[in-house]
Amino acid sequence: MFSGDFSTLKGIFEADLSKEHTTVYQIEGAMAKIATTPNPPYYAVIFTSLRTEGDHGYAEMADRMLDLATEQQGFLGFESARNELGITVSYWDSLEAISNWKKHSEHLIAQKLGHEIWYSKFKVRISKVERDYGI
Amino acid sequence: MFSGDFSTLKGIFEADLSKEHTTVYQIEGAMAKIATTPNPPYYAVIFTSLRTEGDHGYAEMADRMLDLATEQQGFLGFESARNELGITVSYWDSLEAISNWKKHSEHLIAQKLGHEIWYSKFKVRISKVERDYGI
Repeated sequence: MFSGDFSTLKGIFEADLSKEHTTVYQIEGAMAKIATTPNPPYYAVIFTSLRTEGDHGYAEMADRMLDLATEQQGFLGFESARNELGITVSYWDSLEAISNWKKHSEHLIAQKLGHEIWYSKFKVRISKVERDYGI
Repeated sequence: MFSGDFSTLKGIFEADLSKEHTTVYQIEGAMAKIATTPNPPYYAVIFTSLRTEGDHGYAEMADRMLDLATEQQGFLGFESARNELGITVSYWDSLEAISNWKKHSEHLIAQKLGHEIWYSKFKVRISKVERDYGI
């Protein structure tokens, strides 16, 4: 388990705190949308998780990771919903883009904290979207 | 838009009404779980949706479809969450299993009602899971 001081997390993301409310609104808006993706093929990362009790900096980090993901090359969009179970699907144009995002330095910190603090269980599935349709 | 009598929907699923509470409990339990899937490759159907206002028989049909899906050959599991946006991911062992489920007679009725009544917008993405990991 993570044994450090939670307050140090705030330092890492200090620059973001000044725009906290804006960020929250952006994400709430984004989370109510079906992602607009190009014609297949493209890739979907299906992230399913069960949270531990309490926030412990989770919401802030989730916002930050979403902001950061949208800036990455090859990012196509994302969708997210949570009841007890949380599902976040992010869409990417290549396996290389997914691999680069997984290795991003800030994302590595988030993954470590996710593993140690925020998630009691999770599964990541990397899949290739072969066909899509809808209204 | 669907112009029929909503009460006729109940007739279609009359057999299910007698076990309504059992079904609800089963599904609430199932929805809080990360699906246990075999080693890749397998397939994921990512269904993302925005609902219209009101229930109009939706919850009952969703329960019924889940029950029915779990009985289909090639069904491996499912995960579901909804805030404003809903995401349901079902897992299958082949494209043929997905195609058979799409053509199932009761499911065809549900798809038609979904299109006409329950969803203001939806997207179905059929993808091949190539890799997975988790805790």
